[in-house]
Amino acid sequence: MTKINTKTLKGFRELLPAEQMAFNKMLAVIKNTYELYGFMPLDTPILERAEALLAKAGGETEKQIYQFTKGKTDYAMRFDLTVPLARYVAEHERELAFPFRRYAIGKVYRGERPQAGRLREFYQCDIDIIGKGELHLTADAEIPSIIHTIFSQLLPTPFTIKINNRNVLNGFYDSLGVDKVATMRIVDKLDKIGKSGVKGELTSIGMAQDKIDTILAFSEITGTNAEILERLNTLTIDNEQFKTGLAELSEVASDITQIDLSIARGLDYYTGTVYETTLDEYPQVGSICSGGRYNDLATTYTSSVLPGVGISIGLSRLFDQLKTLDLLKLGASTPTRVLIVPLADGADVAAMELAKDLRNNTIPTEVSATNKLDKAMKYANKLGIPYVVIIGDDELAQSKYTLKNMQTGEQEALDKGQILSTILADWQKCN
Amino acid sequence: MTKINTKTLKGFRELLPAEQMAFNKMLAVIKNTYELYGFMPLDTPILERAEALLAKAGGETEKQIYQFTKGKTDYAMRFDLTVPLARYVAEHERELAFPFRRYAIGKVYRGERPQAGRLREFYQCDIDIIGKGELHLTADAEIPSIIHTIFSQLLPTPFTIKINNRNVLNGFYDSLGVDKVATMRIVDKLDKIGKSGVKGELTSIGMAQDKIDTILAFSEITGTNAEILERLNTLTIDNEQFKTGLAELSEVASDITQIDLSIARGLDYYTGTVYETTLDEYPQVGSICSGGRYNDLATTYTSSVLPGVGISIGLSRLFDQLKTLDLLKLGASTPTRVLIVPLADGADVAAMELAKDLRNNTIPTEVSATNKLDKAMKYANKLGIPYVVIIGDDELAQSKYTLKNMQTGEQEALDKGQILSTILADWQKCN
Repeated sequence: MTKINTKTLKGFRELLPAEQMAFNKMLAVIKNTYELYGFMPLDTPILERAEALLAKAGGETEKQIYQFTKGKTDYAMRFDLTVPLARYVAEHERELAFPFRRYAIGKVYRGERPQAGRLREFYQCDIDIIGKGELHLTADAEIPSIIHTIFSQLLPTPFTIKINNRNVLNGFYDSLGVDKVATMRIVDKLDKIGKSGVKGELTSIGMAQDKIDTILAFSEITGTNAEILERLNTLTIDNEQFKTGLAELSEVASDITQIDLSIARGLDYYTGTVYETTLDEYPQVGSICSGGRYNDLATTYTSSVLPGVGISIGLSRLFDQLKTLDLLKLGASTPTRVLIVPLADGADVAAMELAKDLRNNTIPTEVSATNKLDKAMKYANKLGIPYVVIIGDDELAQSKYTLKNMQTGEQEALDKGQILSTILADWQKCN
Repeated sequence: MTKINTKTLKGFRELLPAEQMAFNKMLAVIKNTYELYGFMPLDTPILERAEALLAKAGGETEKQIYQFTKGKTDYAMRFDLTVPLARYVAEHERELAFPFRRYAIGKVYRGERPQAGRLREFYQCDIDIIGKGELHLTADAEIPSIIHTIFSQLLPTPFTIKINNRNVLNGFYDSLGVDKVATMRIVDKLDKIGKSGVKGELTSIGMAQDKIDTILAFSEITGTNAEILERLNTLTIDNEQFKTGLAELSEVASDITQIDLSIARGLDYYTGTVYETTLDEYPQVGSICSGGRYNDLATTYTSSVLPGVGISIGLSRLFDQLKTLDLLKLGASTPTRVLIVPLADGADVAAMELAKDLRNNTIPTEVSATNKLDKAMKYANKLGIPYVVIIGDDELAQSKYTLKNMQTGEQEALDKGQILSTILADWQKCN
């Protein structure tokens, strides 16, 4: 009989247990940190009304969306967590308290051509703070601390939280009287085409030489936050938007951020602070956590003005990158800390009782389904279970069980209380 | 400008923050218990190859499945977590350790006609223990303890874990030489059509009167587990399958289970122990957690024999039922335990520092984005935040902040250390 293909579809993936355990630990760090900063959970449907999801999409995005019709309904699968947030806030506006601080961790779907690092189903981990009418800058200032808390735990390699402000950029370009969008698009290529390339392209759109020089000089402003802010101040640009941006940038900058005037993050969406986070030793990875301030979340759905600030971590992609860079430390394949093996006839009850005691002390415990010692040991080794308790005939008679430390290979006969305290001490070290 | 419809589609739903918090707490209890019993997490794609998902489906199930084609690929959305598990185990058989104990918590999709209690997108929370070639009965015996641990925490109302064994039923019917499937289908209606109705239907399929009497007498065996087992023993039915089933039932029965010989749980899938869990005071809710033992998980995908035992909790439905029965206690709308309000000019820094101390002690904390006290208080009240710390001019000068307990209304001036210890003591009580 021909068996059916059991591989996942291209761009979709599933992990083996040790990887899944590592992935879930990363998810837990993100979730716990988001909650520590007082964000409330939000879980919206994966399937939405197509007209609602597609309202603002178009071009490349729209082509990537999974859409279908069933019965009389046009469905679409969400392709990010921001559009559903906008719809949710518009729908429940009167029931929510503002500023509305929500986190969302879930899968999103994009039917892109699958290639290295591109998944069609992947996790996004978002936070947003949405104000009603207004949102104080303290929200922007709080974000880097959240990013820092998360990546200090997730990454075994140094990272930098880069910030910039769109008002600074827009005000600067306005003060020069140049076409903002066209100019930014060209300056954005500085990394790729170099100074002379940018110069050439700016000349070709008819920009005067002195303006080109000013723009290139601006793009070369680097240094500590204090140095950059000082330089921006001494430019004495007489433009309100620039001044606003500079004041905002000064307030958001801190010892855990690095101002980087080259960051723009797309042309349309963000209107104030912007964030990117990069790995110092692996610049090729690009930004692992990005976001920024926007003037209005939900223009498509409501006439209320809902300014917000938010960031997104693309965890599936980050996980893959860390794996590729060999920065992912895989541990056990199971939460189980103790495997109890009832070897003796009638040891089942003793095994179940010990398991109950351990679980009552929050220690993940498994009773072996086999009474063959070599098989149980092989199982514990394969899964990375740190302790095995053996209950043989002698052990049962003396009420002392053999506790084996699977890492050191040491084993000793202990009573239940001693087993519990040994494992508990070790377990608390891990948590 | 016409705004777009922001309601979720019929059969799809999203929760308000206080509900979502309550739902997530329930999810966490289930997840933590599954891990405490040594189940490893598994997260398979929501979109699968249609041919893989539909291999065993048919009739009603197939009609309900969300299917579509994009490019050259036929996609289907998973409608349960068991079919993906079977596919996963077949695909990764050589990389897994057996018995393979996995839990899966995720959304599944069924395009049913939406009606009261029927969702098209809902959470299932499954565990399965899969053996290779064989699986010891200790696996079956462990399951009720897991169910008990979970629902003792989730439910404010008494529940009963009912068990039965398909070998007992099949062996009993075989010993009578009657058509098992037809008979079970009729006996299953006992609740609805009563004893005389069952008698009539069994007669109409041509069953002899003495056999009908034997079947009805069997269905009336109730009592404590010991009493039922004793009665089954005294029937002295000479059928190997019945004897096997009786031995299995005896081993799985315990002081947290109730044998119920009327439970069959469908006709095809289960082959040994079966489980149902019901609310004693609300029988109309039906089973909130069901499952059982099966001979072979993945016949469609692999020729390996993979016996298993598993259960599933339909959490979305249970949540709705508890809500309807008014058994759902809603608490806060946010994880935030402390809202810090920097009223004084320059109190922002002090607020951020205090927030950092609290967060370092794992207390979810928020710095208010407003410096208007009444607005902040209204916000804390609406979200159910238990503590507010106010940093005004006097407070800032004296380095003593006002800690207000939002439940009692009491407030006192305390230094940072005192604030921390007060809130920490309260927080530890909650956890």
